[in-house]
Amino acid sequence: MKRNVLIIGAGGVAQVVAHKCAQNNDVLGDLHIASRTVSKCDAIIQSVHDKAAMKQDGVFEAHAVDAMDSDAVEALLKKTGAQIVINVGSPFVNMTVLEACIRTGAAYIDTAIHEDPAKICETPPWYANYEWKRREDCAKAGVTAILGAGFDPGMVNAFARFAVDEFMDEVKSIDIVDINAGSHGKYFSTNFDPEINFREFTGTVYSWQEGAWTTNKMFEVGREWDLPVVGKQKAYMSGHDEVHSLAANYPQADIRFWMGFGDHYINVFTVLQNLGLLSEQPVVTAEGLEVVPLKVVKAVLPDPSTLAPNYTGKTCIGDLVKGTKDGQDVEVFVYNIADHKDAYNEVGSQGISYTAGVPPVAMAMLIADGTYDTATMVNVEELDPKPLFSLLDNIGLPTRVKTDNGDFAWDQAKA
Amino acid sequence: MKRNVLIIGAGGVAQVVAHKCAQNNDVLGDLHIASRTVSKCDAIIQSVHDKAAMKQDGVFEAHAVDAMDSDAVEALLKKTGAQIVINVGSPFVNMTVLEACIRTGAAYIDTAIHEDPAKICETPPWYANYEWKRREDCAKAGVTAILGAGFDPGMVNAFARFAVDEFMDEVKSIDIVDINAGSHGKYFSTNFDPEINFREFTGTVYSWQEGAWTTNKMFEVGREWDLPVVGKQKAYMSGHDEVHSLAANYPQADIRFWMGFGDHYINVFTVLQNLGLLSEQPVVTAEGLEVVPLKVVKAVLPDPSTLAPNYTGKTCIGDLVKGTKDGQDVEVFVYNIADHKDAYNEVGSQGISYTAGVPPVAMAMLIADGTYDTATMVNVEELDPKPLFSLLDNIGLPTRVKTDNGDFAWDQAKA
Repeated sequence: MKRNVLIIGAGGVAQVVAHKCAQNNDVLGDLHIASRTVSKCDAIIQSVHDKAAMKQDGVFEAHAVDAMDSDAVEALLKKTGAQIVINVGSPFVNMTVLEACIRTGAAYIDTAIHEDPAKICETPPWYANYEWKRREDCAKAGVTAILGAGFDPGMVNAFARFAVDEFMDEVKSIDIVDINAGSHGKYFSTNFDPEINFREFTGTVYSWQEGAWTTNKMFEVGREWDLPVVGKQKAYMSGHDEVHSLAANYPQADIRFWMGFGDHYINVFTVLQNLGLLSEQPVVTAEGLEVVPLKVVKAVLPDPSTLAPNYTGKTCIGDLVKGTKDGQDVEVFVYNIADHKDAYNEVGSQGISYTAGVPPVAMAMLIADGTYDTATMVNVEELDPKPLFSLLDNIGLPTRVKTDNGDFAWDQAKA
Repeated sequence: MKRNVLIIGAGGVAQVVAHKCAQNNDVLGDLHIASRTVSKCDAIIQSVHDKAAMKQDGVFEAHAVDAMDSDAVEALLKKTGAQIVINVGSPFVNMTVLEACIRTGAAYIDTAIHEDPAKICETPPWYANYEWKRREDCAKAGVTAILGAGFDPGMVNAFARFAVDEFMDEVKSIDIVDINAGSHGKYFSTNFDPEINFREFTGTVYSWQEGAWTTNKMFEVGREWDLPVVGKQKAYMSGHDEVHSLAANYPQADIRFWMGFGDHYINVFTVLQNLGLLSEQPVVTAEGLEVVPLKVVKAVLPDPSTLAPNYTGKTCIGDLVKGTKDGQDVEVFVYNIADHKDAYNEVGSQGISYTAGVPPVAMAMLIADGTYDTATMVNVEELDPKPLFSLLDNIGLPTRVKTDNGDFAWDQAKA
């Protein structure tokens, strides 16, 4: 049993995490939120109180911390008594926050893979470059660390595990499809930090096919999908975190990630990319100013947190898993539908932040009650998905399964 | 009779000006070139010597000068004894260089209207905001100043004057069309300084129609033109310098400027413009760095001076002038065709720089021999165009005229 949560980060996903933690503070205990800019934490706590989101009276405090400094995070964990860390800060801070957890014994949860700001798209499997190097240290210290525990990565890893366990003797392929059929009404915007968003698409696209890493360029491989609720949508094979753990856990299957993009997004991205404006490497202006083009692009784009009030439409994120059962081919689509407006009404964020922010809170609740308190480092597909699905049915992201026989709640599905 | 030339600036157009001055130094006398970065001037002089371009033995010296500082330019004029200034520096330095000419009595030639770096697209007529305010001072001091003496503005002003004088009793419209049908082989590049190039198209499009200033947005009004040599080409009504003097000298005519753009240029421009990346106003990055987006775009684009070696194809720039003669409608197209490869072989620059850089040298030669030594400030359409056309027939930019009766050298044309 662990209690008391420290949230690292104060962006759009942190806003969702804070609201969901507050709604479940009877299970989670004291709540703390920390980022470099304490005023952002204060604003999030204020929004929690504005919505009267705390389930019961309790602590919710803001702190300033430099999460790149393990000593500072360690000191904050000791000061607050937090035993569970939900790290939804920038992906640059994963390893320093994890180090503080290993030192203090706190459980660690994150939602995106660690990145070095100066590098894009390192050698696969990405988890092996940073996180997995600390797996033994976690085991030795008995530290629970759940990696990539947002929606994708996160829920889609659990979807894969569920599909394979429940419907197949043998898995042949796992295709993860992420469609945002919502509209924010701007000429162009990313749905989360543009710097992180674009970094996903400027490198090599790695997929795991026929037992080996396969490389493609972004937007090189696209296909139309026909999905529940959102209908026909074009998606492109993209690099993404979950491919890098699923390939290790299901090496016999082809593992691909597909992200939905409209033609307009692709055009804007292509222009910026070809001009060199998405580069993370500095250029020097004629006036001698050294500047990273991507940071300027970020500065001119809308702040993703401002999109939520006018965001409409739905997301559909799921796994098409193919395999065999009793010698017959079988195919299931495990998925969730989320609604931007509903997310805004509940927690003041759009649907992309909502889908990323709710699962790590569910993980924290399952660590708090011992179900997921693994005392070692895991990716989400290494956990039994059923307690997670049951909990999420109640707190906001129900799982559905589409098979040849119909479209079902996950615990009603028939192959 | 004036002699000895000081060239201000060391970009692509200055390169052409330097070569053409060298080829005619028997008329022009000592040559000097000055910019903030003296090494750029040295490189241009070296390229002149590499091509053995000096017609006769003579002086060609490089100098460092801050052209925003009238005292410095004045001192340089006194030191060099230059009596003719060809200003092909940034359009931000026109007024300080002109001031130095007024003080010393040197003749002044430029190729683009003065701009304040912090402002885009001021109130029409643009010349009235800066240059024309010094007209009386030029007249009092007996200073010759020829404004906008490149190709467009410049030759196209002379084309208009020629068409009206030779073929019409009354002029009804002057449509200036600038088509670059060349190819530089890059994904995207501007043909001269991106900062200056984009500034032309981010503001209001002013045209003079039915005796009043008319406003449009860029790319709002487009039409296809069928032109000599380059064929059918799409061009869009754009703001441009010459409209602002021709409207004062031919107020009875509609005056419009049309710039050719391919769909790819328009797409890239539209994306950058809509994202705010063409703004001359600084933004602040998440890291607190203040930076002007347009300067970053400039930093990532190819340096236009690097395009020349691989540039192929031709430009067609001309005036479609309509009016009446003896009660009958009459229409003539006065134009020039230039070739990128020929320009590179002759002076080491592409055709856009060539067309802009040769005319001011012709003006300087006509000041040197007294023909254009007006002792006051003029725009090009206020000068007799015939000596200019005759000279340019010999030094690189022949003028042609297309009428209902055929396509002629300018001095052979029949209406």
